[in-house]
Amino acid sequence: MTMAQQFWTEDVTELLRVREGFDLRSVDPDATPGTVADKKGGQAELARSAQELRGLQEKLFAQSRIGAPERLLVVLQAMDAAGKGGIVNHVFSQVEPYGLALTAFKSPTEEERANDFLWRVEPRVPGPGVIGVFDRSHYEDVLIQRVRGFAPPAEIERRYGAIADFEQRIATAGVRIVKIMLHISPEEQAERLRSRLDEPEKHWKYNTGDVDERVFWADYMEAFQIAIDRSVAPHAPWYVVPANAKWYARAAVQRIVISELQAMRPEWPEVEFDVEAEKVRLAGTAGLRWPS
Amino acid sequence: MTMAQQFWTEDVTELLRVREGFDLRSVDPDATPGTVADKKGGQAELARSAQELRGLQEKLFAQSRIGAPERLLVVLQAMDAAGKGGIVNHVFSQVEPYGLALTAFKSPTEEERANDFLWRVEPRVPGPGVIGVFDRSHYEDVLIQRVRGFAPPAEIERRYGAIADFEQRIATAGVRIVKIMLHISPEEQAERLRSRLDEPEKHWKYNTGDVDERVFWADYMEAFQIAIDRSVAPHAPWYVVPANAKWYARAAVQRIVISELQAMRPEWPEVEFDVEAEKVRLAGTAGLRWPS
Repeated sequence: MTMAQQFWTEDVTELLRVREGFDLRSVDPDATPGTVADKKGGQAELARSAQELRGLQEKLFAQSRIGAPERLLVVLQAMDAAGKGGIVNHVFSQVEPYGLALTAFKSPTEEERANDFLWRVEPRVPGPGVIGVFDRSHYEDVLIQRVRGFAPPAEIERRYGAIADFEQRIATAGVRIVKIMLHISPEEQAERLRSRLDEPEKHWKYNTGDVDERVFWADYMEAFQIAIDRSVAPHAPWYVVPANAKWYARAAVQRIVISELQAMRPEWPEVEFDVEAEKVRLAGTAGLRWPS
Repeated sequence: MTMAQQFWTEDVTELLRVREGFDLRSVDPDATPGTVADKKGGQAELARSAQELRGLQEKLFAQSRIGAPERLLVVLQAMDAAGKGGIVNHVFSQVEPYGLALTAFKSPTEEERANDFLWRVEPRVPGPGVIGVFDRSHYEDVLIQRVRGFAPPAEIERRYGAIADFEQRIATAGVRIVKIMLHISPEEQAERLRSRLDEPEKHWKYNTGDVDERVFWADYMEAFQIAIDRSVAPHAPWYVVPANAKWYARAAVQRIVISELQAMRPEWPEVEFDVEAEKVRLAGTAGLRWPS
């Protein structure tokens, strides 16, 4: 029994993966499915599995150097203050910087709005061997844009078709897509926003717009339910992670990413040059000294 | 006395900064100036100072959110296998992914060669609040290009003027520039290349071209000496770091980066919204429940 199995009493990826008939209202943001551990145990698990994550990522990166097309794209979506930043800083900081491509999508610029909603997304799809992380994504274009009426219903509908085509296309090119919703309660959000106001060192993280969006909570949850229903696919699964307990959400996302990387079966690549011949060539330069 | 001071017996940034009359031949790649510690001590120092580095980086990032233009650009140059990758994976992995922009410059593509040598560099200058790291850089255009004659002398000369203008311009825009040469000996390089051939898990890191470049060692060192002489400036200093001992090079680069960040004096920003008014607005949404 591995240490990870001691923390996880069940396969958390199976527990959190969205299936037929999924109902967001049935997910308790306070729950910690798959483990009976506490905060201390969660933090220990996060540290303990870092090497497992990094080892898989290194192999993924290495095999891309000789042409393997596989890469992973992790889409993070959530209400404000749900912990996306913490996931990046505590989970994805565990992989090598060379193997990570992080994009934080903001409100679209004028140029981005003048183009199709996928125009800014396409260039951010990770290259071979890389783990791409989207902090917000093209799903904003069917979430906030629906809730706040920034786009009419017919356009939202068109976007679902475009998202399906886009994700199918990049999956065919070797991108494994994992979509994760961090699910917090409105009470937990209020506490987190309050702590940003109470602590001067956190003031910069506070956005006055967050309270404005907050009152549309029910509309956002409806939009999430629809977005998940419309875009869940075998090649692009959704996971909904209870996120009121930060330690749980981080350990769960780490385990989901590890599990997805394992499914990709990365291997140390076989190189094409003649290793023995290179040893001879290198030995031929053994006398090199500088300054001579 | 801080823990860091226990490791560093002298100010390593002063010891390694290139000054008037610098002579590369006088730098011993085996030396570990500024400390009497060993590998174990170096690894401990690297872990111990991680929080100091991250704290500075977080402030730099935070203040940029309200408009501060400052950012740091770290240029890493070295012979193959000198440890640039290790510096990125062991030092720069300590900062938040949001605050790091890593660019590994490869051999120029056809499109890059069709443009000026700075064409591909300009878009990779880090944005406000971010630590940019160049694994290789525009200095390749006056190093390998000089040594291998890919560009004629007049063009190399023109590039020195262009580099000076470029670095002056971005410094004026708020970019603190730090240029670091990791300095290994040809004997140490041979050992590292050999280990890449001996260990199948490292085969992918081996490049058959490395042996070809290796025989031009003296020419490369001459090109480095000229590049450093021609581009050292108060706003864009060079540091030459003895790098035969990986633990030393990593601790030294970490300390140089910390020192440069300290000199930038990043501060938690004062926000412009009314904190007390926001607390009231937020409290007004305290009754929010979902599902209702």
